[in-house]
Amino acid sequence: MADNDVILDLERDARIGMPEAVLCTNKTPTQINRAIKQAMAASKSILLTHLNAEKAASISGTPLDYDMISQTAIAGPWDAPTSDPLVAIVSAGTSDMPIVAEASRTLAFHGTQSKSFVDVGVSGLWRLLSIRDELAKFSVIIAVAGMEGALFSVLGGLVPSLIIAVPSSVGYGVARNGETALHSALASCAQGLVAVNINNGYGAACAATRILGARTP
Amino acid sequence: MADNDVILDLERDARIGMPEAVLCTNKTPTQINRAIKQAMAASKSILLTHLNAEKAASISGTPLDYDMISQTAIAGPWDAPTSDPLVAIVSAGTSDMPIVAEASRTLAFHGTQSKSFVDVGVSGLWRLLSIRDELAKFSVIIAVAGMEGALFSVLGGLVPSLIIAVPSSVGYGVARNGETALHSALASCAQGLVAVNINNGYGAACAATRILGARTP
Amino acid sequence: MADNDVILDLERDARIGMPEAVLCTNKTPTQINRAIKQAMAASKSILLTHLNAEKAASISGTPLDYDMISQTAIAGPWDAPTSDPLVAIVSAGTSDMPIVAEASRTLAFHGTQSKSFVDVGVSGLWRLLSIRDELAKFSVIIAVAGMEGALFSVLGGLVPSLIIAVPSSVGYGVARNGETALHSALASCAQGLVAVNINNGYGAACAATRILGARTP
Amino acid sequence: MADNDVILDLERDARIGMPEAVLCTNKTPTQINRAIKQAMAASKSILLTHLNAEKAASISGTPLDYDMISQTAIAGPWDAPTSDPLVAIVSAGTSDMPIVAEASRTLAFHGTQSKSFVDVGVSGLWRLLSIRDELAKFSVIIAVAGMEGALFSVLGGLVPSLIIAVPSSVGYGVARNGETALHSALASCAQGLVAVNINNGYGAACAATRILGARTP
Amino acid sequence: MADNDVILDLERDARIGMPEAVLCTNKTPTQINRAIKQAMAASKSILLTHLNAEKAASISGTPLDYDMISQTAIAGPWDAPTSDPLVAIVSAGTSDMPIVAEASRTLAFHGTQSKSFVDVGVSGLWRLLSIRDELAKFSVIIAVAGMEGALFSVLGGLVPSLIIAVPSSVGYGVARNGETALHSALASCAQGLVAVNINNGYGAACAATRILGARTP
Amino acid sequence: MADNDVILDLERDARIGMPEAVLCTNKTPTQINRAIKQAMAASKSILLTHLNAEKAASISGTPLDYDMISQTAIAGPWDAPTSDPLVAIVSAGTSDMPIVAEASRTLAFHGTQSKSFVDVGVSGLWRLLSIRDELAKFSVIIAVAGMEGALFSVLGGLVPSLIIAVPSSVGYGVARNGETALHSALASCAQGLVAVNINNGYGAACAATRILGARTP
Amino acid sequence: MADNDVILDLERDARIGMPEAVLCTNKTPTQINRAIKQAMAASKSILLTHLNAEKAASISGTPLDYDMISQTAIAGPWDAPTSDPLVAIVSAGTSDMPIVAEASRTLAFHGTQSKSFVDVGVSGLWRLLSIRDELAKFSVIIAVAGMEGALFSVLGGLVPSLIIAVPSSVGYGVARNGETALHSALASCAQGLVAVNINNGYGAACAATRILGARTP
Amino acid sequence: MADNDVILDLERDARIGMPEAVLCTNKTPTQINRAIKQAMAASKSILLTHLNAEKAASISGTPLDYDMISQTAIAGPWDAPTSDPLVAIVSAGTSDMPIVAEASRTLAFHGTQSKSFVDVGVSGLWRLLSIRDELAKFSVIIAVAGMEGALFSVLGGLVPSLIIAVPSSVGYGVARNGETALHSALASCAQGLVAVNINNGYGAACAATRILGARTP
Repeated sequence: MADNDVILDLERDARIGMPEAVLCTNKTPTQINRAIKQAMAASKSILLTHLNAEKAASISGTPLDYDMISQTAIAGPWDAPTSDPLVAIVSAGTSDMPIVAEASRTLAFHGTQSKSFVDVGVSGLWRLLSIRDELAKFSVIIAVAGMEGALFSVLGGLVPSLIIAVPSSVGYGVARNGETALHSALASCAQGLVAVNINNGYGAACAATRILGARTP
Repeated sequence: MADNDVILDLERDARIGMPEAVLCTNKTPTQINRAIKQAMAASKSILLTHLNAEKAASISGTPLDYDMISQTAIAGPWDAPTSDPLVAIVSAGTSDMPIVAEASRTLAFHGTQSKSFVDVGVSGLWRLLSIRDELAKFSVIIAVAGMEGALFSVLGGLVPSLIIAVPSSVGYGVARNGETALHSALASCAQGLVAVNINNGYGAACAATRILGARTP
Repeated sequence: MADNDVILDLERDARIGMPEAVLCTNKTPTQINRAIKQAMAASKSILLTHLNAEKAASISGTPLDYDMISQTAIAGPWDAPTSDPLVAIVSAGTSDMPIVAEASRTLAFHGTQSKSFVDVGVSGLWRLLSIRDELAKFSVIIAVAGMEGALFSVLGGLVPSLIIAVPSSVGYGVARNGETALHSALASCAQGLVAVNINNGYGAACAATRILGARTP
Repeated sequence: MADNDVILDLERDARIGMPEAVLCTNKTPTQINRAIKQAMAASKSILLTHLNAEKAASISGTPLDYDMISQTAIAGPWDAPTSDPLVAIVSAGTSDMPIVAEASRTLAFHGTQSKSFVDVGVSGLWRLLSIRDELAKFSVIIAVAGMEGALFSVLGGLVPSLIIAVPSSVGYGVARNGETALHSALASCAQGLVAVNINNGYGAACAATRILGARTP
Repeated sequence: MADNDVILDLERDARIGMPEAVLCTNKTPTQINRAIKQAMAASKSILLTHLNAEKAASISGTPLDYDMISQTAIAGPWDAPTSDPLVAIVSAGTSDMPIVAEASRTLAFHGTQSKSFVDVGVSGLWRLLSIRDELAKFSVIIAVAGMEGALFSVLGGLVPSLIIAVPSSVGYGVARNGETALHSALASCAQGLVAVNINNGYGAACAATRILGARTP
Repeated sequence: MADNDVILDLERDARIGMPEAVLCTNKTPTQINRAIKQAMAASKSILLTHLNAEKAASISGTPLDYDMISQTAIAGPWDAPTSDPLVAIVSAGTSDMPIVAEASRTLAFHGTQSKSFVDVGVSGLWRLLSIRDELAKFSVIIAVAGMEGALFSVLGGLVPSLIIAVPSSVGYGVARNGETALHSALASCAQGLVAVNINNGYGAACAATRILGARTP
Repeated sequence: MADNDVILDLERDARIGMPEAVLCTNKTPTQINRAIKQAMAASKSILLTHLNAEKAASISGTPLDYDMISQTAIAGPWDAPTSDPLVAIVSAGTSDMPIVAEASRTLAFHGTQSKSFVDVGVSGLWRLLSIRDELAKFSVIIAVAGMEGALFSVLGGLVPSLIIAVPSSVGYGVARNGETALHSALASCAQGLVAVNINNGYGAACAATRILGARTP
Repeated sequence: MADNDVILDLERDARIGMPEAVLCTNKTPTQINRAIKQAMAASKSILLTHLNAEKAASISGTPLDYDMISQTAIAGPWDAPTSDPLVAIVSAGTSDMPIVAEASRTLAFHGTQSKSFVDVGVSGLWRLLSIRDELAKFSVIIAVAGMEGALFSVLGGLVPSLIIAVPSSVGYGVARNGETALHSALASCAQGLVAVNINNGYGAACAATRILGARTP
C-alpha cells in the first residue's frame, strides 16, 4: 500500500532549521529504507533514532554510521564538528549513558560540539562542585538523571546557564520509569529549569539547537 | 520563633544572575513582610508571586507595585523596560491571561520587554498562521495553553525559535488541571519543545532570562 | 467443557445492524475455530480482529482473507466495496498504519469504502492544509494519532465533519501508551470531537457504520 | 490591556458550521461582556456555557435568555426549534439533569429539537427496555451517566443508533469524578460507542450537530 | 536456608474454616514441593493456584490433579462434589474462562458444586434476560467481567442474590488490566454489589465459602 | 420540566428485595420532596442517604426520622428491629463513626439488628483479640477502616465470617481519600474478603441484606 | 451513642513506649473532650495533633498548651526538655514551618530536645554546606521538603546520620501535594534514606523516639 | 569512550560511613568489571546488587561471592559477622525471600549480623504473636511485605523497635507491584513507621547501618 511510507517533510525542516530525523520504533525496515531513499534522493543526510542493532543490520543500499550505545545512525555524508564545545551534557550515573550519547550524537549531526560529564550525581556532591566553574561557562547544559532527579535542582542553583532536564527511566519502584525524575525537574525549587520527555536525549539536543541556532545566522 | 523567617539568598542570586523572588502561597504576611525588609536593607528590589489581593493589602511599610491579573507585586524601585521586545508570549485563550501576565511581569522585572499574543489557539488556526512570520523572528517564545495544549506542537512545526511550553490548568474533566496540556508538550511530535510546571509563568520567564543572558547587565 | 465456546450473538447483530466480529486476544485457536464454524453454519461471514500471524496459521477448515498489517481476517465470502469512499481516515504518522488499516478493513467488511491519508501530522502543517478541502467533503473522518494527538484539535477547527479520534499507543514516556493522545482528544478546544479507546480502529469504523446507516440493509 | 479580550472567531464558525460559544469558567464578567458585544456587532447570537447565576447577573447591556439548570445563556435573538426531535438524550439518573439540559439547550441553539429520557439507568432495566423501540428510531442518541456508566454498554447492544456517551461526575469514591464512567464508555464491549469529555453536554451536542449538519445541505 | 520454606498454617485453616491453598507465583518448585509435603504429612489435601504447566511438571512425589485452564492443581485425595449447585458463576465473555474455572475448581475443592454461565455479557442482553429466573434462585452469584464490567450492574438490578464481582484483565487501552471493571463494580448504581481483586476467582470462591459455610454446621 | 423528577422504581425493589433509597448528593430539595411524595403515594417508606442537615430542614410535608451522624433520614412509618443482632459492624477508629452509623441505620431500615464495635483497629491489637470469639459468631461482619486498612486482613485471619470491607476516607497524604484502604482490602493476604466503594456504609448494609434476606421470605 | 467515643489504648502505649496522641481531624469536639478526660482520669498527659484554632477553643475543662503554628496541643502537665538537642530538624523552606513545628513539639512531648534549621534547601546550596559539620553530629535528622524534595538526597550524601524524610505538600502542579517529594525521598540515589507520610511531622518524631529509645526515661 | 565508566566515590563512602555498592541493572558487564577494578585498586571490597546470574558469570579477573537468591555479589575479601544479631528481618511470606536475603547480605557486608523470621504475615496472626517478645528486643526491625502490607501496622503496635518497612512487589491486580504495600506502610495507624522504596532490601539495610553505626564509635 503506497501510503504506508514515511514521507519526509523537507519543507518543514527548512522552516524550523533542523535536519530530518526518523524515530524508528514501530517502523518496519521497509519503511525506514524508503525514508532513507527519499533523503538520499534529495541529497540530504538523515538521523535515525531508537534504531536497534537488528533493524540497523537490515538497512541496505546506503551506508550507515551506526552507534550502538545511543541506538542512532546517520545515513548520508556528514562531518563531525571540530569546534569548541558549546553544550555541556551532565549525567547523574553511568546508567544514563545511552541518553547522554543520543543527545551528543544529535548535536554533532546538527553541527554542534558538546562535552560530556558522566556520573556526577548529587550523592557525590563534591565531584559536581569541582566542575561547577567549568559548567557555568556553558550557556546551555543538558542534564540527564533518573531515580529522584535531584541533580537538576542542584545544578539550577549553581550556574546561570539554561538547564534542559532529561529525566531518565533509570531506577525502580517509585522511580516509575522516569516519572519521578520528570516531576522533580518540573517542580524544582530552582527557577528557570526546563524539561523534555523521559529519555528524550534527542529532543534536548533539538532544543539546544533551537537556542544556539537562533543566535547564529 | 526566629527561624520562622524567609532568608533571602542574595549570594545565590548573584551566582545564577537572577533577582530574588518569593512565592507567597503558604507564607504568612509576617513572613512576607520580613522578606521585603531584608531585600530593602540590602538595597535590592524583590518580586512577589502568587500574592492575592488580601495578602497584598496586609503588606505595610514598603510601597508595592501590585498587579491584580498576574497576582504579582514588586517591592522596591524598578523601571519597566523600554527596549524592543525580545520574547513573544503566545496563549491559546483569554482564560490563560493570568499566566501570560505573570510571565510578562517577571520578564519586565528582569529587564526584558515582551510582546503578548492572546487567544491564538489552534481551533482558530488562521489567526495563528497570520502572525507566523512575526513570531518566527523571536528567538524565544513562551507558549501558554490549557485543555489539550495542541498549540505547542503546532507552533513547534511553524517556527525555529525555542518554545517554552507553559501548560495551564484551564479546562475540566480529563484536562486534569493542566496535566494533559503538560503531557502534550512533552510528548509532542514537534522536536525540541521544552516545558515548565503547570501555570508556571514565572519559571518560563526565568528560563528565558537564562537564555537571553542574565549574565550581561 | 462445552461452555468454553464463543457463542455468536446473531440476534444482536440484526438488532444493531452490524455483522459479528471476534476479538482474538485471550482466545485460544480452538475457541476461534468454533466461532468461525458457528458463523459458517449460519451462512454469515465474520471478522476476526487482533489476530496475529501465528494464530491465523492455526485456523483450519475455512479459508481466511488475512491481512498482516491490520492483524485482521475475514472468514467467509465477502466483496470489497467499489463505490466512492464515504469515510476519510487520517493519521499523524506511518507508525499508526496498523490502526488505520484495522479501521479501513472493518469499514470495507461493513460495505463502506474509505480513503486513507497517512503521515499528515501537525508538525508538518502545510501537508494537512493542502488536503483540507478534500477532507471537508467527507461527513465522517477517522483520525488516528499517538504522542500528543494535536492532530485531532487542528482537524476539528478546519472541517465541519464529524471527527472520530482514535488515540494510538505510538510514543514513549509521558505519551503513556496512548493516554495522552486520548486526553488530548477529549479535552480539545475544538468542539464536537468524539473519541474511542486507544488503538481501537475497529470501534471507530463501527461508529462510522452506525452513522452512515446501519439502518439501511 | 487590550489583548485581555476574548476574540470571537467568526471565520472559523463559518468553516466548521457551528455558531460561536464561550466557556465562561475562568473568564471575568468584563471579558464575557466584550465577547457578547463583538457578537452583537456582527449580528450573531452567541451561546454562553458554564455561566453561574452570579456572573449571569453581572451581564449588562444585552438581554440574556438564561437557564439555571444548564448554566447556559443565549445572547441575541434566537428561535427555539419546533420541528420533530432528531436527537434523543438519555440519562441514568436525575442528578445528571444539568448535563442533559446543557446538551438540550445547545442543540436547540443549533436549531435541532431533542427529546429527553431521564432516570432510565440500568439498575431499573425494564424502564429502559420499555422505551427501546422509540430510542432505536433516533439516528443519534446522547447518553449521560455517572458512577459506573453501565448505561452506555446496554444502550449500545440495544439500538443501531450512534451513541455519544457523556460521562458525568455523579458518584463518589472510585467513581473518580466521572473517570470510571468515561473509561466504561471507552472500554465497552458494545462496538461503536464514542465518548466526549466528562460533563461535556455541550460537546456532545456539537458532535450531533456535526453529524446532522453533515447530511442536510 | 531453612527459613526459605512455605510454612502451612493449618491452625488458621481450622479457625477460619477453609482448607490451605498456595499461590504459586513467585515461588520456586522447591518451595512448592515442600508445602505439598507438609500438607501430606498432616494428611491434608492442598490447593495450588496460579500454577503454570511448566512448574506443575516439576512437582514430584505426590500425584497432582492439574487443570490447565484454571492453572490450578489439587494435591492429595479429594472428591468432586455431586450435590446440586449452590453457586452460579456468570461471565461476560469466553476470554474470562480461566477465572471462571479457578472459581469453580476452588468451590469444588471446598465441597461446593457450582454452575457456570459463560458469554452472557450485556452487549447481548437477551441472552442474560433469558436466564434471569434461573440465576435468581442462587443465593450467591460470582460474576466475572473485564472491559467495562457493565454485567455487574445489570445483574445487580435483576436478582436479589449476593453478587460477588470479579473484574478480569480482559480488554486493552483504558480497560487498564481490569481496573475499569473493578471500579465499575464498586461505583455501581446497583446497591449491594461486592468485589474482590482483579482476576481473583479463588478469592471470590473463598467468599462464597464464607457465606455458605456460615450456614451449614 | 417534568422529566426533572426522581422516578422511584418500586418494581425493581420488589425484584431485588430491598426497599427504595435515594442518594441525596447532587439532588435539589425539590427533587427529594417529589421522591418522598411518590413513595408516600405508594405507601412505601423510603431511606434518604447523604442528606445534610440543611437539605433535611428543607423537606416539608412528611415527617422525617433524621440522624445527624449518619446523614440519613427515613420518611414514612418504620419500626426499629428488636431481635438479636445478626450483623457485626467493626471500625478501626472513632473517625469512622459516620460510616458505621450509615450501615447500622440501613440495616435497621431493612429490618436487621446490628451490633457496633468501634475503635478496635490493629494498632491496639489486644482489644480486637479480646472480642474475637464474639465476632466469630456473626455470619456477616461489616468492617470499616481508613488509612492503611490493616484491620481487614487481621479480621480475615481471625474469623470464618464473611467480611465486607468498607474503606473509609479517614487519613491524609498517601491514604488518598480511602484508596489505600480499598486496595488493602482487595489485595489482602486473607482469603475471601470482599469490598464495597469508599465510605459506602449503605452498600455494605445492602450486601448484608442480600445475604441474610435471600434466605428469609 | 456510647460507642461513639475515642478509647485511649494506654496498654499499647506502655507496650510501644510512646505516650498517647489523638489525631483531631474528623473528630468532633465532644469526642476530643472525652479523650482528654480519659487521659486525665488515668493521670496521663496527651498530645492532640491537627487541631485547628476553632476546635481548640471548644475544648473545655482541661487547660491546653496550644501552639498555633504546629496545630498541636498538650493536655495535662508536661515539662519541655532542657537537655542538649538530640535530633536536628532541617527544612527546605519557610513554608514547611508547620511540619517542622509539629515534629519539634512531638519530640519535646516525648522528652527529646531538637534543633531546627529552616530554609536550607538545595537551591541555596552553600547555606546547607555551611552547617554540614554541625548536622553530621546528630545521629538522627528529620528533613522536611516539598516541591521536588532534592534536599533529601543531598543530605544523604553529606552526613552519616539516619535521615527521616518528611515530604511536605508545599508546591503546585506536578508537585502533586507532596507526592513528588515523597517519591524523591524513596527513589533517592543516596542509600539508606527512610520516609514517612506526606506532612507527617508527628510520625517522623515518633520514629526518632523509637530510635532514641523513649523506653528508658 | 572513557567517560562511560562507573566512577566509585570512595571519598563519599568515608563521609557517610558506608562501603561502596553498585546497582547492576542497566549497567554493562564492562562497566561492572571496571568498577570492581577501581575498588580492588583502592583495596576496598565492593557490593554488587541486582546482579543476575548471567551478568555474574561474565565478571572475570576477581573472584565473586555470589548469592543467587538475593542477586548480590561481594568482590574482594570480607568476613561474615559472627556476633549476636542486632537486626531482625521479618517477612510476610516466602515469596519475599529475595528481599529478605538482599537486606541480610547487605547488613553482613556492613559487619552486622541479622536474624530472619520468614512467613509470619498477619493472616496467621498467632505465629507472629508467638515471636513478639523476641522481636521486641531488637532495636531495629526490617519488615518485608507485599500485597496489602498489613504486617507493618500490626508490628508497629506490638513492639517499641524502629520498624523499617520494605514493601515488596509480591501480589497482583491492585497490589500494583508494591504500591499498595508502600502506601499501607506510610498511611499506617501505627505511629513511627518508616519506609524505603519497593523491593529495596539494600536500602533498608543501609538505613539500619546509619542507625547502628551512629551509635557505635
